[in-house]
Amino acid sequence: MEPIGHVRADRDEAVDDDWGDAVSTIELEGFDAEALRGLGDFSHAEIFFIFDRVTEVEGGSRHPRGDTAWPRVGIFAQRAKDRPNRLGATIVEIVSVDGTSLTVRGLDAIDGTPVVDIKPVMREFLPRSEVRQPEWATELMRDYW
Amino acid sequence: MEPIGHVRADRDEAVDDDWGDAVSTIELEGFDAEALRGLGDFSHAEIFFIFDRVTEVEGGSRHPRGDTAWPRVGIFAQRAKDRPNRLGATIVEIVSVDGTSLTVRGLDAIDGTPVVDIKPVMREFLPRSEVRQPEWATELMRDYW
Repeated sequence: MEPIGHVRADRDEAVDDDWGDAVSTIELEGFDAEALRGLGDFSHAEIFFIFDRVTEVEGGSRHPRGDTAWPRVGIFAQRAKDRPNRLGATIVEIVSVDGTSLTVRGLDAIDGTPVVDIKPVMREFLPRSEVRQPEWATELMRDYW
Repeated sequence: MEPIGHVRADRDEAVDDDWGDAVSTIELEGFDAEALRGLGDFSHAEIFFIFDRVTEVEGGSRHPRGDTAWPRVGIFAQRAKDRPNRLGATIVEIVSVDGTSLTVRGLDAIDGTPVVDIKPVMREFLPRSEVRQPEWATELMRDYW
């Protein structure tokens, strides 16, 4: 898997929370403006990126953020960054598309992060039945955005 | 990027539509049951997989499904499989978790597809503002599920 571009953002160190207002730009590399043609007709995109600063990954289970007040859960039952393949995926608001630059709001990735894909969000690809999640997840996400 | 497992499904050839009732199982490889611990407390997961049968990818723009009734749009403004890095990502319903097997409904991936990540769907990671999309996307998705 090769980067299709990189994130340009103010933040250059990972933080746990307050990503909601982050505005960042994905600069494509190796593509021309045709690759983003029509993306601006969507309100949201999903950005796929690599947590490239992570050097050790978890393959089993643990307490999210190491907090023993929350249950021990498997790495595939959490969205932590130190996961096998180090893949991140986040739905963002599209702010603007300009040539090979895509500016978005709410991307929880730091400056320099390699991007491996961009997909438009279509309503039909969102959950088509009621979403349920455990209480710990709701608590963990409380200050995330 | 290494597979964390593979899809076991009835379908072994890609089709354009009717994926909604597809029930398939992801068999993890190289992990034990701890990796999926707690995932069953979520109603939905997002499955990340590789379109490994695709041999040539599109890097520019084209009409979705080759249909000139729809506008020409960039590869990152569509979810087509012959895309750079060949990454697929689909939100599915969790049917059951059994050891290192995860059974899901609505995965648009054929038998043998390599899986590279599984993430739980949290409400807070869904769009937090109104979703808009162009008419062609709504038409294209009409019979997809």
